[in-house]
Amino acid sequence: MRLRASKFDWTLVDIEGASICDAEGFEAAGIACGIKHNGERDLALLHCKVPANVAGVFTRNLVKGHSLLLTADRVKSGNRVRALAINSGNANACVGVSGNEDALHIAAAAAESLGIEAEQVLFGSTGVIGQPLPTDKIITGLQVAARELHPTTAGGHKAMEAIMTTDLLPKEVAVRAVKEGQGFTIAGMAKGSGMIHPNMATMIAVLATDARINRNCLQEALDLANAGSFNRISVDGDTSPCDMVLLLSSGLANNEEITSLKSDAGQAFLIALKQVSRSLAKQVVRDGEGAGHLVTIEVEGASTPEDAYQLALAVAKSPLVKTAIFGSDANWGRIITAAGYSGAKFDPAKIDIYIGSIQCCRAGAALDFDEVSANEILKEEEVLIRIDLNGGKHSDHYWTCDFSYDYIRINGSYRS
Amino acid sequence: MRLRASKFDWTLVDIEGASICDAEGFEAAGIACGIKHNGERDLALLHCKVPANVAGVFTRNLVKGHSLLLTADRVKSGNRVRALAINSGNANACVGVSGNEDALHIAAAAAESLGIEAEQVLFGSTGVIGQPLPTDKIITGLQVAARELHPTTAGGHKAMEAIMTTDLLPKEVAVRAVKEGQGFTIAGMAKGSGMIHPNMATMIAVLATDARINRNCLQEALDLANAGSFNRISVDGDTSPCDMVLLLSSGLANNEEITSLKSDAGQAFLIALKQVSRSLAKQVVRDGEGAGHLVTIEVEGASTPEDAYQLALAVAKSPLVKTAIFGSDANWGRIITAAGYSGAKFDPAKIDIYIGSIQCCRAGAALDFDEVSANEILKEEEVLIRIDLNGGKHSDHYWTCDFSYDYIRINGSYRS
Repeated sequence: MRLRASKFDWTLVDIEGASICDAEGFEAAGIACGIKHNGERDLALLHCKVPANVAGVFTRNLVKGHSLLLTADRVKSGNRVRALAINSGNANACVGVSGNEDALHIAAAAAESLGIEAEQVLFGSTGVIGQPLPTDKIITGLQVAARELHPTTAGGHKAMEAIMTTDLLPKEVAVRAVKEGQGFTIAGMAKGSGMIHPNMATMIAVLATDARINRNCLQEALDLANAGSFNRISVDGDTSPCDMVLLLSSGLANNEEITSLKSDAGQAFLIALKQVSRSLAKQVVRDGEGAGHLVTIEVEGASTPEDAYQLALAVAKSPLVKTAIFGSDANWGRIITAAGYSGAKFDPAKIDIYIGSIQCCRAGAALDFDEVSANEILKEEEVLIRIDLNGGKHSDHYWTCDFSYDYIRINGSYRS
Repeated sequence: MRLRASKFDWTLVDIEGASICDAEGFEAAGIACGIKHNGERDLALLHCKVPANVAGVFTRNLVKGHSLLLTADRVKSGNRVRALAINSGNANACVGVSGNEDALHIAAAAAESLGIEAEQVLFGSTGVIGQPLPTDKIITGLQVAARELHPTTAGGHKAMEAIMTTDLLPKEVAVRAVKEGQGFTIAGMAKGSGMIHPNMATMIAVLATDARINRNCLQEALDLANAGSFNRISVDGDTSPCDMVLLLSSGLANNEEITSLKSDAGQAFLIALKQVSRSLAKQVVRDGEGAGHLVTIEVEGASTPEDAYQLALAVAKSPLVKTAIFGSDANWGRIITAAGYSGAKFDPAKIDIYIGSIQCCRAGAALDFDEVSANEILKEEEVLIRIDLNGGKHSDHYWTCDFSYDYIRINGSYRS
């Protein structure tokens, strides 16, 4: 948010009970087609009444899911799309060439159900790796989903449910930006919740907007918003073959068309998109597998941006830091240890460490702080760890969660 | 072991019930001086009857413990030493300049108790970070320990006990190398067991030998042995400020003096040292916090050594792989996922993955393998995961362990 407040007179409103359908032109459905053994929803369909511009960011994992590859190709083509289907319960990854064929086949079936062109459909899959998709179930399911599409919150919520895997909570948000009669909405939904790590994890986020914005600006805004949100979260340091963030725009709002992010409406769009992305990213971490705490790691005073990033990353990933937070133990020694092996350059004799409002370490040495108060702070649902290197003006942040018994339970028996 | 068998006629014998004192010239003690609240042994003393050559490798963490800094300086000086003291229960790290003064003071006190020069003493500390050492307790303890020094297994075992923190088991080994009347012994002890990761973790290993070997060869052999052993183990990916491996030689054996590792005795020394180091490294992982399995990750067919290393490292560190092994779940999808984000370059369409004798993945795609047999294999105490990239001739390995409920329990309450 580098805008000067005086120049920014848009009002941003968080929409209560948000769903992806809060963006004009989108309708959604979520049904159970039989991939999940427990009968829960496992197939989401999002449809846009008009051809939508689309931007995307995709996993940097060398191993890429077959559905993701199809979607990434279609996003890169620059062509407009009309629909996005996502199944949960099966990642459609590492099954050989048949995985690519299945993805093509399913996208074509979705198009037929909706009466649109095959190339206008995007497809995502999330779940277990290495098992062929049950294509018949999905194709039958898509016919049902197409009939159940709804432009209301109810449709959006069902789509959200259908993309969940080990998620305990739905993750939805919508922000409306208005200024003197013109306005647009950005809505989003996301799923986690293990394998969450920067450069896209087992995470899929779908953002939809009605803003009038050209495709280049759409991609540029997504890249910028993604850098400070979805690429700054870690549940366990693993990244998966199926992670992606997609942003579709229907262009049905009445805002002045955005052809530069530096324009007045462009800045509003970027700010609103960052707000939506950060909200979803934090919801993903808060609902990380077994997580009891949302932990923000803030690094200040680094001599380079890269140092700030490396240090925040190492602390956010450290299993020892994460288990200490699970145990409400103000063991800042593990924080300075992670800082030390992060690869960031800093002077260990200058580092200050704070847990919430309590300073534990000054100039690299222990302070005699109140352990009881620190313990109380660590019992809060949100925990802030602040590290000041006192060596420069660069800063960065990371959101992570604690490592709990439940993380082990969930991941020790994921496929059973 | 790149020697041709025909040229290598040394016999290596594993000594049963080994202790650090199996190397001629060394005597040891381990006592309780009151650092640990539970009254267990927490102060080890190793004494050499003659001035010993010493080699060492030290943590690459930017944050270094005060005791370690003193020892690293003295090892680098090239001077011979007579003793090594190690306390557990307190890391003497991040306490400010007083930590350096405490280390100097304690080393001097140890020297006085032993009637040797202050500079002939090395000192190590392991345990909680950020608390000043109870120097009076340690100095009094050193007087007791000096009186209790024993050149027998009993003395060695007590020293081993005294360096343990969350270790459940002692880790000791000794190998005797003999050939036509000449022979030498290399003995060692090590402590883990969290924060274990390459480049030295919260691990301290002490190796002692009676071999006649010059100091340059001693350091060169240690560097080589370390690379394939202590630098190839991971418990949780964290590395600590206090990690070190020390190798002392009394020179009291009757072998032809080793002035080159390429000589006959030099090669025998290197092979024996590798055997000792690998044994201790594997004992450390096997006793990793909460560990139920010793997991070997073998990577083959990489196009560069760096790719093989990066890939083995990423799989060994992955919490999702480690929890799957805890749950005896043959979830090879997490292995290929970790391979994909490791940074190693390979062709995902060529990768083969084996769990024990069972191939789960061929050419990047799932195989229909017997899950029940795979589950049985994963219940074994030792698990082998083999990854063949089919892209070159380079290989590497890593030893790791599973992530269990006990890991969370131990690390959620370490300081209480």
